[in-house]
Amino acid sequence: MQTPFRSHRRVEFRDTDAAGIMHFSTFFTCMEEVEHEFLRAMGTSVMMPLEARQGAGKNAATTGTTIGWPRVAAECQYRGSARFEEQLQIELRIAELGKSSVTYRFQFRVEGREIATGSLTSVCCKIQPDRPPESMPIPEPLRKRLAGLVEP
Amino acid sequence: MQTPFRSHRRVEFRDTDAAGIMHFSTFFTCMEEVEHEFLRAMGTSVMMPLEARQGAGKNAATTGTTIGWPRVAAECQYRGSARFEEQLQIELRIAELGKSSVTYRFQFRVEGREIATGSLTSVCCKIQPDRPPESMPIPEPLRKRLAGLVEP
Amino acid sequence: MQTPFRSHRRVEFRDTDAAGIMHFSTFFTCMEEVEHEFLRAMGTSVMMPLEARQGAGKNAATTGTTIGWPRVAAECQYRGSARFEEQLQIELRIAELGKSSVTYRFQFRVEGREIATGSLTSVCCKIQPDRPPESMPIPEPLRKRLAGLVEP
Amino acid sequence: MQTPFRSHRRVEFRDTDAAGIMHFSTFFTCMEEVEHEFLRAMGTSVMMPLEARQGAGKNAATTGTTIGWPRVAAECQYRGSARFEEQLQIELRIAELGKSSVTYRFQFRVEGREIATGSLTSVCCKIQPDRPPESMPIPEPLRKRLAGLVEP
Repeated sequence: MQTPFRSHRRVEFRDTDAAGIMHFSTFFTCMEEVEHEFLRAMGTSVMMPLEARQGAGKNAATTGTTIGWPRVAAECQYRGSARFEEQLQIELRIAELGKSSVTYRFQFRVEGREIATGSLTSVCCKIQPDRPPESMPIPEPLRKRLAGLVEP
Repeated sequence: MQTPFRSHRRVEFRDTDAAGIMHFSTFFTCMEEVEHEFLRAMGTSVMMPLEARQGAGKNAATTGTTIGWPRVAAECQYRGSARFEEQLQIELRIAELGKSSVTYRFQFRVEGREIATGSLTSVCCKIQPDRPPESMPIPEPLRKRLAGLVEP
Repeated sequence: MQTPFRSHRRVEFRDTDAAGIMHFSTFFTCMEEVEHEFLRAMGTSVMMPLEARQGAGKNAATTGTTIGWPRVAAECQYRGSARFEEQLQIELRIAELGKSSVTYRFQFRVEGREIATGSLTSVCCKIQPDRPPESMPIPEPLRKRLAGLVEP
Repeated sequence: MQTPFRSHRRVEFRDTDAAGIMHFSTFFTCMEEVEHEFLRAMGTSVMMPLEARQGAGKNAATTGTTIGWPRVAAECQYRGSARFEEQLQIELRIAELGKSSVTYRFQFRVEGREIATGSLTSVCCKIQPDRPPESMPIPEPLRKRLAGLVEP
């Protein structure tokens, strides 16, 4: 695994708006999709049963507790626009890594021209029904593997 | 409570697409929003802890079991289109009521002209983490109240 | 080109809802994405300048007239559910072909089990700014190629 | 007209995700909806025919040129989460006003507790079919009215 992690994505019709271009909010779901693809490539998932990681046994499925990654910050700078059916080339880099948090940086290009850059900061949390998410340290060895990829 | 249940909704920019009109899929989220508004007006919610209804006590919050209403069918017929910032007038009627299921019919108008009709059929289900939804009878007295509103 | 036309798609996090499954409306955007992928595989696009097809010359870009395919009907039957990160296998068939309209049928599977079937009926239209879409005959030779694929 | 401009919005089911909370990207569409509501309250719209403002006469409808407000930047800081059917209280302020651009600041609360703050920076542009958006000065008297509301 190396960074930048590269992905691509076609601008679908539902991603556009009446101005004829990809809606600005769609860049955020797109960053998230690439983040998740990156985590899958790292051998993990953005949302997994907490028990499955800890070998808690047969009661695991009934508690509904999962590890999730709620965002604490998201931002995007737009320098151009993308139209229906254009191909977005997307690069993900790890800009910062804390005990519980990670900041990804993204770059969007269409045919080589940069149209947007952005970032997501996520915090590793326990997700339980009927409670607010609760932050927790990023599980080892995931944190170790992410640490090797930081490009400040 | 009487039917038709009437609501309205402005076409937001994110609801539109590059053809300059409200995207066809948005009619479905719109039907759902009116269904939920109707259920709130009936004094219930589309998603509630199962235990809260049954007074199961202090362990309720930890199991994560809720009553939900997954759809078994959804359809929409389009006769016109709606543009950004137009006001949709929406009517909900109950077309059919089964032991576990309910079919709502919807009509969409813009300035009096009908632009679409549609329907949703939902089944009352137990929703539990890590399991498929499981159908259950619509709780009394909700079913009784819905029964009084059926307009076949 | 043969039918069924097959595609696949991962359930992204934004496709899910608080019931933990892919939201019912997302099946419709998914059908649309596969329809568009099919049209690209046929050598066309769901939205193209009318002039480009007709060689209208240098004024083409300024009129903003395009060929589009607004829907007249959409429906979906749900038999199961799909969760975050599951892979959807999707098949598209052409069920009906009219002078201006086409009806596609879709089947969704997860690991071989059918979870939904649906259809979209679209009408070939001129799309102009500030006017309602206006139906037009499906351009030859696209109609001829679609005709060879009808599976009633 | 005074600022903060206040609006509210219920968390709809489609706004949630499998973590049971409002999806982080939905805060951006929500900011946009409040921006547009604010512009309507100012007597304008985020997307209007350029000719309508300039009295260009009978050819106006055919060119498809509009004034739009593409974003150059968007960001959000999340401090809490919102669940299905909760009410968001949203405040909009004007933080900066340039010749062609405006920066709005937003605050989101649920039952008095702040769950997010964010901002959008938009640039006034000519939107024409088949061309990239082109920046233009914010029309007077809109700019004058916005200038009276800046709260740095």
